[in-house]
Amino acid sequence: MRMYDIIEKKRDGKELSPEEISFFIEGYTKGEIPDYQASALCMAIYFRGMSEAETVTLTECMARSGDTLDLSDFGELSVDKHSTGGVGDKTTLIVAPIAACLGGVVTKMSGRGLGHTGGTVDKLEAIPGYRTSLSEEEFISQSKRINIAVIGQTGNLTPADKKLYALRDVTATVNSIPLITASIMSKKLAAGSKNIVLDVKYGSGAFMKTTDDAEILAENMVKIGRGCKRNVTAVLTNMNVPLGENIGNALEVKEAIRVLKGGQKDELYEVCVALATEMVALFKKIPPDEAKKLVIGAIDSGAALSKMREWIKAQGGDERCVDDESYLPSAAVIYPVLSPTDGYITGTDAQLIGASAMILGAGRESKDDVIDPSAGIVLVKKPGDRVKSGDVLCRLHTSDVSKLKEAEKVFLSAVKFGEKEPPKEPLIYKIIR
Amino acid sequence: MRMYDIIEKKRDGKELSPEEISFFIEGYTKGEIPDYQASALCMAIYFRGMSEAETVTLTECMARSGDTLDLSDFGELSVDKHSTGGVGDKTTLIVAPIAACLGGVVTKMSGRGLGHTGGTVDKLEAIPGYRTSLSEEEFISQSKRINIAVIGQTGNLTPADKKLYALRDVTATVNSIPLITASIMSKKLAAGSKNIVLDVKYGSGAFMKTTDDAEILAENMVKIGRGCKRNVTAVLTNMNVPLGENIGNALEVKEAIRVLKGGQKDELYEVCVALATEMVALFKKIPPDEAKKLVIGAIDSGAALSKMREWIKAQGGDERCVDDESYLPSAAVIYPVLSPTDGYITGTDAQLIGASAMILGAGRESKDDVIDPSAGIVLVKKPGDRVKSGDVLCRLHTSDVSKLKEAEKVFLSAVKFGEKEPPKEPLIYKIIR
Repeated sequence: MRMYDIIEKKRDGKELSPEEISFFIEGYTKGEIPDYQASALCMAIYFRGMSEAETVTLTECMARSGDTLDLSDFGELSVDKHSTGGVGDKTTLIVAPIAACLGGVVTKMSGRGLGHTGGTVDKLEAIPGYRTSLSEEEFISQSKRINIAVIGQTGNLTPADKKLYALRDVTATVNSIPLITASIMSKKLAAGSKNIVLDVKYGSGAFMKTTDDAEILAENMVKIGRGCKRNVTAVLTNMNVPLGENIGNALEVKEAIRVLKGGQKDELYEVCVALATEMVALFKKIPPDEAKKLVIGAIDSGAALSKMREWIKAQGGDERCVDDESYLPSAAVIYPVLSPTDGYITGTDAQLIGASAMILGAGRESKDDVIDPSAGIVLVKKPGDRVKSGDVLCRLHTSDVSKLKEAEKVFLSAVKFGEKEPPKEPLIYKIIR
Repeated sequence: MRMYDIIEKKRDGKELSPEEISFFIEGYTKGEIPDYQASALCMAIYFRGMSEAETVTLTECMARSGDTLDLSDFGELSVDKHSTGGVGDKTTLIVAPIAACLGGVVTKMSGRGLGHTGGTVDKLEAIPGYRTSLSEEEFISQSKRINIAVIGQTGNLTPADKKLYALRDVTATVNSIPLITASIMSKKLAAGSKNIVLDVKYGSGAFMKTTDDAEILAENMVKIGRGCKRNVTAVLTNMNVPLGENIGNALEVKEAIRVLKGGQKDELYEVCVALATEMVALFKKIPPDEAKKLVIGAIDSGAALSKMREWIKAQGGDERCVDDESYLPSAAVIYPVLSPTDGYITGTDAQLIGASAMILGAGRESKDDVIDPSAGIVLVKKPGDRVKSGDVLCRLHTSDVSKLKEAEKVFLSAVKFGEKEPPKEPLIYKIIR
């Protein structure tokens, strides 16, 4: 078998065989196939696409390229949730304890963030003492004991994806549905959960800018996930506006706890209930309306909050933060951004608001930057709100005063004002079960 | 400027600016742009194509990437002929002295062959003593003295093309009209001639298998050549059958001399008259019918043959070979291949006949193989001929008897027999002036 023939075949729009896809992924991971042939193939895939069978094979080959987590002890109860990424997205912190307290097993490896804000692991590290790295034995035994463990990615998980993604990132071949699908789903496969809920975000703060693009990706991921013998549901959620009020690591932990306490029933609450509902429906194999009742009950009864406390304690974190926010880091400077005008807020560029939070210290611009866990933004006004000149739009949290002016400028450039009340956008566009 | 943005722009079907193309070619030649980005761009160009303006810029940038030959001393008289490659193609040996004896200046660098048979330089090296490498001063001064000098490629000509072609060859991106055009025309540009006649071959023995593909390539090369301020004509010629009777280096020199003596007025003669006519029409700026009379006159008067003698002598070769073939190498073994059947020869696979000649020693399979100048094939029967079982189809020439059986087998597999006389194919499909 020759890589040349594989490139040519895909270039000419023909379907690659499982052997050819496996030859490519194994050879590329081992360094036997050079980058320049892999990038030519990725560009041919960009133009020609991949069939369902090809994408399933690609996903499975990539999942098998490194270590895989064996969650077979948990049978049909293991459950994972994956978000395609957004600003202020702290849903994992909320839905994981809900699912766990209802009998699901959330044995989750999460990423660090690059860009606007931290990833789930960065958020958890805002909790004093929380250990984001456990040995595989600790990780599994904690999951058995309390149904939940969330750590950073360890070991040699999907090296094929790491290598291929880095190449795609510099050759303008990221934006290909089968390649995105295989990249995400191979990591989910390797992470071992039987049930997977995908939170596919669309809008100004998401990778997919339109509902159409998000829907195509979501449908493809569901199809491929099922082809790889996992139970998969996708929820398409709005990311034109940051999710919830808080952006920034400790700020997001605080807001997550507030939601679990039942004290914040806003759009963040709604999205979390929807995601948790789909998780519970999958691992309990019950209809979503039944699952939804269980989810709301787990919040209202305090069971989810107790699970949060248990989880933080099990991973070495100071669980007192659940009852007293002062145990979490807080910023030295809190600075209000005022509205420059009268009118309605008609929209925001969520990506730019994320950029403003990054400037304040909440995210990393490059891989080695250090995050300030207390930094971030608390939104006071959101699209649809009527404001007067001088009203507080948001509060910037930071420990670096020198960043305030730039962050304020970027924040203001992200807010659109108008005279008419904007139409209300749907929060959840579609659920693909 | 970033290579990433250039790839993305082309991927999305937008036109690259001259600055972007220049950035790519300069950066890639210097090794500052990695192969994996160049191959991704080539694949994007494969799918998206290039506009006339883009291809002109690409061609000019590649031409400028290394040394260029300055033929400005010859004003409008410098003339080059380029063939896209075929089996038994010895036209340069015939048209170069014709053009030179009529006042054109043929200051030509030719390639060595890889594959079925040798290139022009390999053919010239079959002439005892002929020097295929001259210093630039010798090369130019000989051209001034006798209007003709033909050597192998020297110096650092179009390094961008060399590097890019090697990459395209292993990434399935050779077959792109703008990239083929830029590759060929950049070399012609760097070689300096003002007037260029392109012999674009189509058929079983050519790179372009169909007249449609050849026509698209020819029209594009003419357009781009003119965009680069050269006078260009393209002649589309049939390569379903080897050109002339002889295939192999010394054998082809012998046949070329025979044509220049006026002793062989077959299809090879016709193609050479057509090509020489276009060359003369360009550098003399006269209508083709006038040019054709001059060309035929140059053969009939012996002027072209004299020029051949003068040329060989000037480059150190034994010019007595022009009058006596025995001064050229001849094979130790000459072996007839007999017809296995009665009927008409209805067609040949010219590429396979070339492969048979290569087996006999006439061509190189890999870059370091040594050519046997005496090896090759003399065709006795050609498509349209009626044969009886046992008739001689061709004679194999070699100094390695062990190769005869394999070469015979390959030759016979290339010949198609049938009961009906095949329709006569046109020899010259089209001339693009």
